[in-house]
Amino acid sequence: MTAPLRLGIAGLGTVGIGVVKIIRQKATLLEQRSGRPVVITAVCARSRDKDRGVDLSAYGWETDPVALATRDDVDVFVELMGGHDGPALEATKAAIAAGKDVVTANKAMLAIHGQALAESAEDHGHVIRFEAAVAGGIPVVKALTEGLAGNDIVRVMGVMNGTCNFILTKMENEGLGYNAVFDQAAKLGYLEADPNLDVGGIDAGHKLALLASIAYGTKVAFSDVELEGIGRITIEDIHQAADMGFRIKLLGVAQMTGRGLEQRMSPCLVPAQSPLGTLEGGTNMVVIEGDQVGQIALRGAGAGEGPTASAVLSDVLDIARGIRVSTFGVPARSLVAAKPAASTAPAPYYLRMALMDKPGALAKVATILGDAGISIDRMRQYRHDEPSAPVLIVTHKVTRQALNEALEALDSTGVLTQTPVSIRIEDE
Amino acid sequence: MTAPLRLGIAGLGTVGIGVVKIIRQKATLLEQRSGRPVVITAVCARSRDKDRGVDLSAYGWETDPVALATRDDVDVFVELMGGHDGPALEATKAAIAAGKDVVTANKAMLAIHGQALAESAEDHGHVIRFEAAVAGGIPVVKALTEGLAGNDIVRVMGVMNGTCNFILTKMENEGLGYNAVFDQAAKLGYLEADPNLDVGGIDAGHKLALLASIAYGTKVAFSDVELEGIGRITIEDIHQAADMGFRIKLLGVAQMTGRGLEQRMSPCLVPAQSPLGTLEGGTNMVVIEGDQVGQIALRGAGAGEGPTASAVLSDVLDIARGIRVSTFGVPARSLVAAKPAASTAPAPYYLRMALMDKPGALAKVATILGDAGISIDRMRQYRHDEPSAPVLIVTHKVTRQALNEALEALDSTGVLTQTPVSIRIEDE
Repeated sequence: MTAPLRLGIAGLGTVGIGVVKIIRQKATLLEQRSGRPVVITAVCARSRDKDRGVDLSAYGWETDPVALATRDDVDVFVELMGGHDGPALEATKAAIAAGKDVVTANKAMLAIHGQALAESAEDHGHVIRFEAAVAGGIPVVKALTEGLAGNDIVRVMGVMNGTCNFILTKMENEGLGYNAVFDQAAKLGYLEADPNLDVGGIDAGHKLALLASIAYGTKVAFSDVELEGIGRITIEDIHQAADMGFRIKLLGVAQMTGRGLEQRMSPCLVPAQSPLGTLEGGTNMVVIEGDQVGQIALRGAGAGEGPTASAVLSDVLDIARGIRVSTFGVPARSLVAAKPAASTAPAPYYLRMALMDKPGALAKVATILGDAGISIDRMRQYRHDEPSAPVLIVTHKVTRQALNEALEALDSTGVLTQTPVSIRIEDE
Repeated sequence: MTAPLRLGIAGLGTVGIGVVKIIRQKATLLEQRSGRPVVITAVCARSRDKDRGVDLSAYGWETDPVALATRDDVDVFVELMGGHDGPALEATKAAIAAGKDVVTANKAMLAIHGQALAESAEDHGHVIRFEAAVAGGIPVVKALTEGLAGNDIVRVMGVMNGTCNFILTKMENEGLGYNAVFDQAAKLGYLEADPNLDVGGIDAGHKLALLASIAYGTKVAFSDVELEGIGRITIEDIHQAADMGFRIKLLGVAQMTGRGLEQRMSPCLVPAQSPLGTLEGGTNMVVIEGDQVGQIALRGAGAGEGPTASAVLSDVLDIARGIRVSTFGVPARSLVAAKPAASTAPAPYYLRMALMDKPGALAKVATILGDAGISIDRMRQYRHDEPSAPVLIVTHKVTRQALNEALEALDSTGVLTQTPVSIRIEDE
């Protein structure tokens, strides 16, 4: 196999240009490693005139990604446009129909259409690879699909959205409110066109759903992910969590239980000194627990030109080397539908309440929690100048349902001046 | 490819039995993932009668590993005997000559004979895979060879010997001396038959040399690794490093410099709160820096039945899936000889001295260091009841050579009651 591997690259944003640069700069290295030249046949983007800082004149140009995807002189369609529908999906389908392999960074497209795309590709004997779609430069898809293939996976968890982690760590480090840091992130270009994809946890939820599919041999079930974004996290919660030794992270957890597949992506408190707790800014971490290997943690940059392009190249070189693995680790047609299960396992919770400053108020809270069988691990009441006193509670393990019932009962006592905040605590 | 992949497993110690158990318990899962049944044809060990807790009666038995390695009904020779020469080497050579692929956990054999073995296997169109040889269950060979193949590797570093890390963390946690903990480790069976393989840094040096070969496309050059074991680390150094915010780890670093390939495996101080500093017991961590991806850190169990067997299975399933990658990432015959370079880059150092309790002694030390151009970041002199005072110094960056000259000069002043201790500080 010394024939060149010929790429058609659709999408010339940060990642696409990063891929072009690596292929130009490291032609010899890539050929040494993969055993054959890796070349770019043609590229495609919305505007041809834009200065992208790289000379693209040696490559063919297509204005239509479908035309690029179906060129006879393209072996691998590299989809870096994004968007779960529209041109990305259309061109990917066309590439598969035309007998191409596909490398994509598009988590949204795969989380929603991955099953159909993978079935179609595999029916034609082709592969779709997506290392760049999950946790940027961290080779986590490969680790899970190949490196840990001898394990039954017990749990996959991780911090997989750099923008959310940037916002949360910046709020903590600079003592700023959510809205102020959100605006900064927007100005820095860290947010998706629809910011809710990031801060609503959707992007991270897509990634979790893809990893869960590989881990458990189940069809991607993004719509079953219990999703909660970071929009309701206040600087008070961040400070007070810190005061009790925790940091708040948008954390995803997928695990197979006796009741079915649990998938949740939500803000959680993690111990400040734990590996997840010490993650700063755009750094991602994925923790995989296997029945044989125990806990493996993978940490690295979750986004950016170099890291994401590195992941795209890993898939491209795999194909050049003749490595052909099913999209989700087993043939797509053998993936089974997962029964979704709500996360009912008890967990400790962090509660923040604003308590009316009158005699007996705290007793009422304690009584309601006690009656609900919720025992208190730690409690703090802070000094205050307002008519209501901030009270923090860390509970022992309790089910979400029991907690919700108690919170409702608390709300109706009239001793709280606002609805209590509750955030799950995830001990690693 | 639905014909079974047939294994011959030589060596039925902890890891070998772990592999047998996984193949028995997960036959369906492994077949789903790899696309073909993975079966054991025959096994081999010194004693047939030993109770290993697993029923081996369904497998053929060979007393001679060469006979196992050359059986017609074996596709993959799984070498788990250990030892860099003798039966392991002989059987591996025989397997290659007989047209088998090889999976091995044997870092010593590969660090010494890897080049010749890989050339021979690749000349015959076969592969040697060794995920289990480096950092136990962490899929680091795969990450470096495949997952980060689009990068020029800047640096590879890590804590890769669980036994040394166990000894160092236990010394710190329990305040015990080196010899006491060494004896405990021996009793627990954590030490190799020749304990110097572990505590002398040789085992970890083997692993580093293998990773450096993949990272830089160079022939394995174990004999060029600057090796230093943990035997001279005292409980005083551990306590006093801790007091200054550091922990002592047996740390390997490989990096390509303008002068050549630097490889060193030696005790270093790392910040106590850093990811490397927080590693406990048998946990390993490998940090890979790529020019595109930045810093990727991989953490997990570095040894033990499950983790090591998981790594062996990863290689076996790769072969079952048709994944055939060169042993060191590029064809062995294209690996180049690396020019070894001593690590001359300046680094901060930790110094511990026992200073005579007489006027002017400290001034003499400070003068000699100052004259050598070594500036002091921090210094502490402790209270003492003895005729000599413990003095700790953290220097700013200095070359090893300049430091050695200064230490020699200090030694000859007569103000020290013993030879000073110096340990490099590695900021991540």
